[in-house]
Amino acid sequence: MKSLLPYVSTPEDLRALPAELLPGLAREIRDFLIDKVSANGGHLGSNLGIVELTIALHRVFDSPGDAIVFDTGHQAYVHKILTGRRGAFDELRRRGGLSGYPSRQESAHDHLDSSHASTALAYADGMAKARRLVGGDPRPVVAVVGDGALTGGVAWEALNNLGAAKHHEDNPVIVVLNDNGRSYAATFGACADHLERLRAAAADVTVFEQLGLRYLGPVDGHDIPALERALRAARELREPVVVHCVTVKGRGYEPAEQDLDEHLHAIPVTDPATGQPLKPAATTWTHVFSQHLCLLGERRPDLVAITAAMPGPTGLAAFGRRFPERMFDVGIAEQQAMASAAGMAMSGLHPVVAIYATFLNRAFDQVLMDIALHRLPVTLVLDRAGITGPDGPSHHGMWDLAALSVVPGMRVAAPRDAVRLRELLEEAVAHDGPTALRFPKAPAEAEIAATGRAGDVDVLSSTGQDVLLVAVGPMAEPCLGAAAMLSAAGLGVTVVDPRWVIPVSSDLRELARGSGLVVTVEDGLAASGAGALLRQVCPPGLRVLNLGLPCEFVPQGGRSELLAEAGLTGPGIAHAVREELRAWPL
Amino acid sequence: MKSLLPYVSTPEDLRALPAELLPGLAREIRDFLIDKVSANGGHLGSNLGIVELTIALHRVFDSPGDAIVFDTGHQAYVHKILTGRRGAFDELRRRGGLSGYPSRQESAHDHLDSSHASTALAYADGMAKARRLVGGDPRPVVAVVGDGALTGGVAWEALNNLGAAKHHEDNPVIVVLNDNGRSYAATFGACADHLERLRAAAADVTVFEQLGLRYLGPVDGHDIPALERALRAARELREPVVVHCVTVKGRGYEPAEQDLDEHLHAIPVTDPATGQPLKPAATTWTHVFSQHLCLLGERRPDLVAITAAMPGPTGLAAFGRRFPERMFDVGIAEQQAMASAAGMAMSGLHPVVAIYATFLNRAFDQVLMDIALHRLPVTLVLDRAGITGPDGPSHHGMWDLAALSVVPGMRVAAPRDAVRLRELLEEAVAHDGPTALRFPKAPAEAEIAATGRAGDVDVLSSTGQDVLLVAVGPMAEPCLGAAAMLSAAGLGVTVVDPRWVIPVSSDLRELARGSGLVVTVEDGLAASGAGALLRQVCPPGLRVLNLGLPCEFVPQGGRSELLAEAGLTGPGIAHAVREELRAWPL
Repeated sequence: MKSLLPYVSTPEDLRALPAELLPGLAREIRDFLIDKVSANGGHLGSNLGIVELTIALHRVFDSPGDAIVFDTGHQAYVHKILTGRRGAFDELRRRGGLSGYPSRQESAHDHLDSSHASTALAYADGMAKARRLVGGDPRPVVAVVGDGALTGGVAWEALNNLGAAKHHEDNPVIVVLNDNGRSYAATFGACADHLERLRAAAADVTVFEQLGLRYLGPVDGHDIPALERALRAARELREPVVVHCVTVKGRGYEPAEQDLDEHLHAIPVTDPATGQPLKPAATTWTHVFSQHLCLLGERRPDLVAITAAMPGPTGLAAFGRRFPERMFDVGIAEQQAMASAAGMAMSGLHPVVAIYATFLNRAFDQVLMDIALHRLPVTLVLDRAGITGPDGPSHHGMWDLAALSVVPGMRVAAPRDAVRLRELLEEAVAHDGPTALRFPKAPAEAEIAATGRAGDVDVLSSTGQDVLLVAVGPMAEPCLGAAAMLSAAGLGVTVVDPRWVIPVSSDLRELARGSGLVVTVEDGLAASGAGALLRQVCPPGLRVLNLGLPCEFVPQGGRSELLAEAGLTGPGIAHAVREELRAWPL
Repeated sequence: MKSLLPYVSTPEDLRALPAELLPGLAREIRDFLIDKVSANGGHLGSNLGIVELTIALHRVFDSPGDAIVFDTGHQAYVHKILTGRRGAFDELRRRGGLSGYPSRQESAHDHLDSSHASTALAYADGMAKARRLVGGDPRPVVAVVGDGALTGGVAWEALNNLGAAKHHEDNPVIVVLNDNGRSYAATFGACADHLERLRAAAADVTVFEQLGLRYLGPVDGHDIPALERALRAARELREPVVVHCVTVKGRGYEPAEQDLDEHLHAIPVTDPATGQPLKPAATTWTHVFSQHLCLLGERRPDLVAITAAMPGPTGLAAFGRRFPERMFDVGIAEQQAMASAAGMAMSGLHPVVAIYATFLNRAFDQVLMDIALHRLPVTLVLDRAGITGPDGPSHHGMWDLAALSVVPGMRVAAPRDAVRLRELLEEAVAHDGPTALRFPKAPAEAEIAATGRAGDVDVLSSTGQDVLLVAVGPMAEPCLGAAAMLSAAGLGVTVVDPRWVIPVSSDLRELARGSGLVVTVEDGLAASGAGALLRQVCPPGLRVLNLGLPCEFVPQGGRSELLAEAGLTGPGIAHAVREELRAWPL
């Protein structure tokens, strides 16, 4: 059969196609996705599930004048294929290549770069309010949102606004609910229970209608004519409406449909025939955490675990299998994760909340006001801290050290190796107050042995006191490399790992005082993290150089590649120290 | 009639009273509240509205074993009276005195100090999960929440958890919905519309039942026997239930019931007969902002305003009256405020989001990922920045400078006087990217004239280059005081106001380079704010001292009193500079 895909590069091309060719086009798109995502890694299951829906959207709505806004955005690959970007998929998620999310820089068809869940409805609400004010006949705003994202509070804040009687008139916001019953794992909660009843036609009134929106559905999300009919009806309404589309994550690709846990939500580079990764997975920080938490769970019946809809990626799934009654998935609801952890802690438990570092920002107020103000024993485990990689600016965990450095009473540890991760996790859950552990998405060093100890600070190497390199977590390895280079050039260099990096320990202050130049190195903001705190407590005359990331959004790319660009490698650190000493000699 | 109140100091006393005496007790409590709150200032309307409901709660539930958790917490005065704290009301909201919110330090009957809205349901969910795990017969957890707080996303995240089929069994969480139809102003949104239909018995299914919770009501929230019956029925259910109580804010006090805007939500020291403030209000920063925004609104049809349920306290009400179609109340929903502002900005408007500085933390992720990542022209106006006063640790606006200092592309201004507030607001809304303005809850200086200008930095006084005092916003006045003292002692001191404090301007860096000691002074965290950023860009050898608040929760008290304790007065600043120079002479 002749291939259609090369001839469909714009929504206009798509609209010109006879309907009977569309199922074939959908098949071609699926084959293309499996091929390209297997080669580069990326989000697969969600895009396979939304092929027909995206086709229907672009046939019914006239993008970009009619705005199609994708919540979270990892499900926009099909949209990219249909808006002229098919040829860029070989560079998917690489440095300088196609983004794995919508990107305003790439196309006028993309309206929102962010890839944190649940905000697209609020964004769409704002766009619609603006279009009404700016005058003329307001064009529709379509927000495509998953059932998982409805578990996030900001989605409900937006529904509360969209459905308000006051705003009904001529407010063409169309919420396309892409309901596949899943976040990473099965979507948790009362709203998901409700959607299940709606899918089974076992409820007479929907929660959306109760909140003032119209409701159309459920519609089979793989039946293009049915989708087009529903979307046209929604467009005619000219008032806020939910179109409930039922889809299957991973549709049409057997390994994804068979992956009952996560339906190949996001995959590394993979053999497309089996859906199995081509490289065997190295032991990651997440693995080490996952195993050790289970072990601690055996000893400590008061330990409980909380995830915001990511039991697998955060490593909590094993704990959940071992202690099902002590594991809580709260939905994509980081605020609820933190505030309910506070409630548990005040009632005698020690909760471990495992989330990606970038999502900590979504619950900063609850960490501050619900956990820290009450001085409660809650341990935050921040995975994907620092440079994360191909998911780009919204997924780098760059802000956690800065944010936690201003939370009174918070203690933050950064393990340099697997041995330290286990030790520090034990220390964290033994502490009677708020603690956090952070580590990146990367293989974990098995062990970087200490050569000595100064109080609570590990000394990793020492050739003298000219320069003190203070390594935060996995920066230990490049710091040791830099120290070797600098020592070879005749400088006396000591490398230390403070283990607990916030607050600044008195032992570290003491060590710093005896040095000519103190250099802190962290995989976080240079100007506002653990190193900046150390600078604050050093006396005048003691020189401190803070190395880390600039206060800029960091693009997508490989972790090593981006760390090298930021100078956070052995040679990069050595270079920065030499430059500092050239400009201002000791 | 004989007074009962002196004989009711505990819930046991209350339960021992015959039911027919309760209406009289309620009257006495109201008189007591009006008397004490008029004398000290505080939250009046909400407490007058919850008198009968609090009595019923303490008669039906056995606190503290049965936990009664107050969301937001400003409505807990009656609870305090009934749990042994009546005698402390003369010191209400003063330094060292009775807190205006629940306080775990004050009483075992208080479970949650936080006073940010909408988190109590999540906290209660965590407490209930813990009680179930810890074993035995779990005692009820009662969360008292206003209809306004249901507009906040985290409340919905919690309902999604509470109502989940998985958690139903033996989960005695009772949500007492105190529905007075108001936040500060009338509660906005689809949920409020829905509650109105429920009050009128014009809906057959409630949104709570759709979300898997039971529903009892509506109940007249001023009818004690009806309340007791409903609460007993709720307790018997042993599963998550909403008890919908309809109350009147300001009930029983004519000036409050007549105050249709805000029902005397929170009041300053007041004449109890009229409800009018005893001192005429000085011109505050809020007033100046309010007036000037209206003026700019005349010139700029693209200016719109967004409030998270506080049109009055943030000064936006005037703009809303003048431009009703350009004013958006989104509910107590800071995330929606920011994300919808981003949507508006990308569609051609310039939104001004006016919120309290402390509530910025609730939308940190949206500021970062929805506004800043897209480099959108949104202006945040942060009222109650810095030390706020009698509302205590959760209301001081201490974190805004630290938080905004790590947002790429964000520009932050701090006006020193009313003239600068007007100027900087104009500059902010003229900027094609994210901006913020911050000012405290205080009278505004009319004008502190500049004596000169160095690039974009205002010079306020100068006797030499030994010490450069960099004043952030309203710290200009105490800095001038300190400079006079230090100059009198023979030091050459220059005081400057950078106006835009984040990022650090090159003119300020230049000025700093010529000084012996640079001292930054801000009403925010000393170690992590605007001054800390300046320290980061100063060369080695240039001494910088950052003055500001310690990274601790600051208690309640008067603003002047607390600023003095932190050393942020003329004498305090002069003292810190002298100490620094004594320890390490120039």
